[in-house]
Amino acid sequence: MNNKEITLKDLSDPHELSRLSIPQCDKLCGEIRENIIRTVMKNGGHLSSNLGTVELTVAIHRVFRSPADKIVWDVGHQAYTHKLLTGRYDDFSLLRKNGGISGFCRPSESEHDAFISGHSSTSISAALGMAEAMRLNGDRHHAVAVIGDGAFTGGLAYEGLNNAGKSNNNLIVILNHNDMSISKNVGAFARYLTSIRGNTAYLNAKKKIEYILGNTPFVGEPIKKVIQTSKSALKSVLYHSTMFEDMGFVYLGPIDGHNISELEDALRAAKKLHRPVFVHVNTVKGKGFRPAEINPGAFHAIPSCGYRKSNPNNDVTDSFSETAGKTLCRLAEKNPEICAITAAMKYATGLQYFSAKYPERFFDVGIAEQHAVTFAAGLAKGGRLPFFAVYSSFLQRSYDQLIHDASIDKVHMVLGIDRAGFVGEDGETHQGLLDVPMLLTIPGVTVYSPSTYRELEMCIESAFFGTDGVAAVRYPKDCEKVTFGAEDTDSFIITENGSRKLTISYGRIVHNLYAAAESTECDVMKLVKIYPIDKQIIELCMNYDEIYFFEEGSRHGGAAEHLLTELYGNGYRGKFVITAVDGFAKQASLSECLDKYSLSEAKMIKILNNCAEERIET
Amino acid sequence: MNNKEITLKDLSDPHELSRLSIPQCDKLCGEIRENIIRTVMKNGGHLSSNLGTVELTVAIHRVFRSPADKIVWDVGHQAYTHKLLTGRYDDFSLLRKNGGISGFCRPSESEHDAFISGHSSTSISAALGMAEAMRLNGDRHHAVAVIGDGAFTGGLAYEGLNNAGKSNNNLIVILNHNDMSISKNVGAFARYLTSIRGNTAYLNAKKKIEYILGNTPFVGEPIKKVIQTSKSALKSVLYHSTMFEDMGFVYLGPIDGHNISELEDALRAAKKLHRPVFVHVNTVKGKGFRPAEINPGAFHAIPSCGYRKSNPNNDVTDSFSETAGKTLCRLAEKNPEICAITAAMKYATGLQYFSAKYPERFFDVGIAEQHAVTFAAGLAKGGRLPFFAVYSSFLQRSYDQLIHDASIDKVHMVLGIDRAGFVGEDGETHQGLLDVPMLLTIPGVTVYSPSTYRELEMCIESAFFGTDGVAAVRYPKDCEKVTFGAEDTDSFIITENGSRKLTISYGRIVHNLYAAAESTECDVMKLVKIYPIDKQIIELCMNYDEIYFFEEGSRHGGAAEHLLTELYGNGYRGKFVITAVDGFAKQASLSECLDKYSLSEAKMIKILNNCAEERIET
Repeated sequence: MNNKEITLKDLSDPHELSRLSIPQCDKLCGEIRENIIRTVMKNGGHLSSNLGTVELTVAIHRVFRSPADKIVWDVGHQAYTHKLLTGRYDDFSLLRKNGGISGFCRPSESEHDAFISGHSSTSISAALGMAEAMRLNGDRHHAVAVIGDGAFTGGLAYEGLNNAGKSNNNLIVILNHNDMSISKNVGAFARYLTSIRGNTAYLNAKKKIEYILGNTPFVGEPIKKVIQTSKSALKSVLYHSTMFEDMGFVYLGPIDGHNISELEDALRAAKKLHRPVFVHVNTVKGKGFRPAEINPGAFHAIPSCGYRKSNPNNDVTDSFSETAGKTLCRLAEKNPEICAITAAMKYATGLQYFSAKYPERFFDVGIAEQHAVTFAAGLAKGGRLPFFAVYSSFLQRSYDQLIHDASIDKVHMVLGIDRAGFVGEDGETHQGLLDVPMLLTIPGVTVYSPSTYRELEMCIESAFFGTDGVAAVRYPKDCEKVTFGAEDTDSFIITENGSRKLTISYGRIVHNLYAAAESTECDVMKLVKIYPIDKQIIELCMNYDEIYFFEEGSRHGGAAEHLLTELYGNGYRGKFVITAVDGFAKQASLSECLDKYSLSEAKMIKILNNCAEERIET
Repeated sequence: MNNKEITLKDLSDPHELSRLSIPQCDKLCGEIRENIIRTVMKNGGHLSSNLGTVELTVAIHRVFRSPADKIVWDVGHQAYTHKLLTGRYDDFSLLRKNGGISGFCRPSESEHDAFISGHSSTSISAALGMAEAMRLNGDRHHAVAVIGDGAFTGGLAYEGLNNAGKSNNNLIVILNHNDMSISKNVGAFARYLTSIRGNTAYLNAKKKIEYILGNTPFVGEPIKKVIQTSKSALKSVLYHSTMFEDMGFVYLGPIDGHNISELEDALRAAKKLHRPVFVHVNTVKGKGFRPAEINPGAFHAIPSCGYRKSNPNNDVTDSFSETAGKTLCRLAEKNPEICAITAAMKYATGLQYFSAKYPERFFDVGIAEQHAVTFAAGLAKGGRLPFFAVYSSFLQRSYDQLIHDASIDKVHMVLGIDRAGFVGEDGETHQGLLDVPMLLTIPGVTVYSPSTYRELEMCIESAFFGTDGVAAVRYPKDCEKVTFGAEDTDSFIITENGSRKLTISYGRIVHNLYAAAESTECDVMKLVKIYPIDKQIIELCMNYDEIYFFEEGSRHGGAAEHLLTELYGNGYRGKFVITAVDGFAKQASLSECLDKYSLSEAKMIKILNNCAEERIET
């Protein structure tokens, strides 16, 4: 193989990489980068993180034998090279498309995706589970977790580390250290990592690796003598110098993450040890693509419509997130108690204005949603009005804190739940379909789901000043659509067309519903405060023979089911048809998702005309 | 005050403690211990942990001014001294009783309980929130988190620490280091703490404290010279030697946690610094009560019926937990793939047999429920059959992992959900009332709720070998009650008395229901597999005019509401009365709880005879 030109499509098995020379690998890396840039600029997806791990991924597949060795990519937004090298080169053009390759790891997609990914900080725990299973199975292969420094701000990563170090299994944790999560990393741990990133106080990584590989003695004679005669403190500096060694790992690093042969040596050394090893790899986010190297934040995620310099989706000046951020700024001017919290999502949730204007009252806590809520509760107990802006799917991490630290004691805080509803191309792991069922299980919460910017403003204001306990305002990743025929409100609006049929919905799809109701001449109720249900809503519903509830959210325990049980208790016995999402929704464009789950205007009309083949009705 | 005999009941304000002499304090500590031992042996509660913090609590209240300074007790099972010193001496005899003093911290109970507690690892985040609020308010008081080494196995504590160190606020974290959580602590971090517990390599804590308090120079001249001339590595050993200093804290310790004057000096020094300080305090669990000092695990929690040597509740030989543990052992013998996981609850969940018999397949992960589920998913991906035994209320911490790491990829694991239903005296923070609504929001889960030991065995077996994805088997903190007239099953049983009224329930209260149904001549359906609902159940229900569902769980999104929506979709229009729990249930004995929420036999009969004044019906 060594004498031929090797291109990506020649590789049928990732382990064939081990037969390439280093120059051939470097060439291949160039081809990989081109492919990633071309595809992402067209389909959208994560760019900077993927460009940073090209050499690392090639080195991993040269040293380890996937799928017997298990490679677990934390978050998975750096695994495109891995996908290209593991049989998905041909399908890569369908990245993030309906029916195509996922932008994250999906075991259902390839046996080389050892574990599902999407949410942060899971890889060490998952890889440790696999390493322990292999140990019990008598299997000498390795489990390899690849995790960025950003993911280390999540407590789950620490829980994994705490458990990993104590066992004698074949776990290797590779820290992909680029000093950035999505925006600049926060917290003491990040500072600590950076302090050791270039540290020369330890034993030279090269020496350690050469020693493990059997090439040279670990330490030279003069150093040995010093260690033997000096106090234990000095010994610990030389032998036992990082937090990771305190946690029971062998620490190797820092390694240049763009030098394949250096990476390979380190990984081979790690593999040879057959015990938990922590490999510290320095990478450059956006490597090899100048605009992304200079501004990795801007190239973190490219929208699904592709990258254009003047694309409003790139600077998000017209979106619910943006409106939430600006509303918060406006309210904060008059209300010095208002504080804002983000879990490493300052820009994506529109909090950049607040952070610039009120830096003292702004808290980026890292990817730590549990802490965000408990910390918010602490702020509230100190007389502050906290606003935690968070993606719907990531809020799942705060479930216990919302119950235990906030709701039982009726602590007042506002959740700005962004990416509520379908997120489209990111797929199952990122869908915002469970926040309503989740919140409705918690006694005392209030949930708003506005459908316009003006409503969003009204809801945030009502959530702060018109409720107690936990109040959530949820909104989609989208810009508003102007709907004729409905006023803005923070409670509900009914539009009567003289029909015996009432249609109900909330949030973004209200736009579709108004159109569908008009052409079918149904009455329409737009809910904005969706929980608890206003008594007046119950009374109004009692007047109808048929009710059709359309919900862009999970069916079980959702707002529609809740309304039905309330109506039933009130004596309603008419038709009640729920159209909502069952199961985990796969990646597809927003309009494909809405259509698939019968939440598009056309599908709504079909259901209202009773000619749909939908199963859910009475 | 110095010349009088001072007893507990003389103190009206905790700050009066500062006027006592050290010998007076020591005497008071003796009185506090007596009071705690007497009350706990009678009412039940946490003994060892509370005896370990007597001097620490006295010292805290001598140095800080609660409630202006905020004292946050992690978990809260060490806060009895705090309660006795903050105006609750007279009511202390009602500890854990209906309407009495909580065994944990409750802001609703006293302004001195700065933050709610019950679940582990929340204190640093909460105290940091309060410290930041005070900083913004221009308030120079302190927030003090008191947290045990056991709680440091939870990722939330790490998230708090990671965020705390970077800010210049008045946060003090006191590590109450007793080397035990409930059973012996696990994980690399615990080992690390122990390694520094008696470490003499740092600058003597006393010197550091004296320096801060302004009494002596920080380091003597000879040491100064060494530092100035030596390499930075040596400097870091002397100046910057613990993980906590790496995280941005000033580290003071280790301090003798039973020496009030040493504690006071350290706390005064910490207070003076006005920046994040970490105070490492060594305590002895069970201090001052010989049986508890020798065996702190056995005296961790005393049951509500009080302590008796031969009390079966102390060795739990007859309970659902015990049956689950033994069933697991039996299945594990034939199935080498079965592994068991606990989050620091080996004994309480009956896993001690498994851990003794199959130590290789047993994993105590510390108080890390997030990790437990993701780790279990990793084990399952490696071909293992994981069983995670966990309290209902603590499982809330795993919500995202159950969705993201397990259910989307349909990873097969079994949850043994212990303490499902009312837990009685532990109150709101520990009730097992939300697991059913929580699990029902997750697509693809299976939920069993057996009512007898034999059913528990059948359900665990079915969960392992008859389901896929996440299968949960939930059971109460209790022993079984023999119910006449119902066979054991892992699905459901209907007992027909020829009535048009059907009563339905599941779990422990089925015992009450059978009795109530007999005296009212209703038909009875016992559900064991409560989700997903069997089609046959729907068909059978359709035959009745009235259905009464009794649920020992939260109403919103529970099994009863779910059945109603399924029945409605199938055309059922009869009466459907749900009796379940609304809101957060307060502490009381089990029978008081059941009676309060109309789940006792007598109250069920009332409802079935329609003479109840319950609101929930149609």
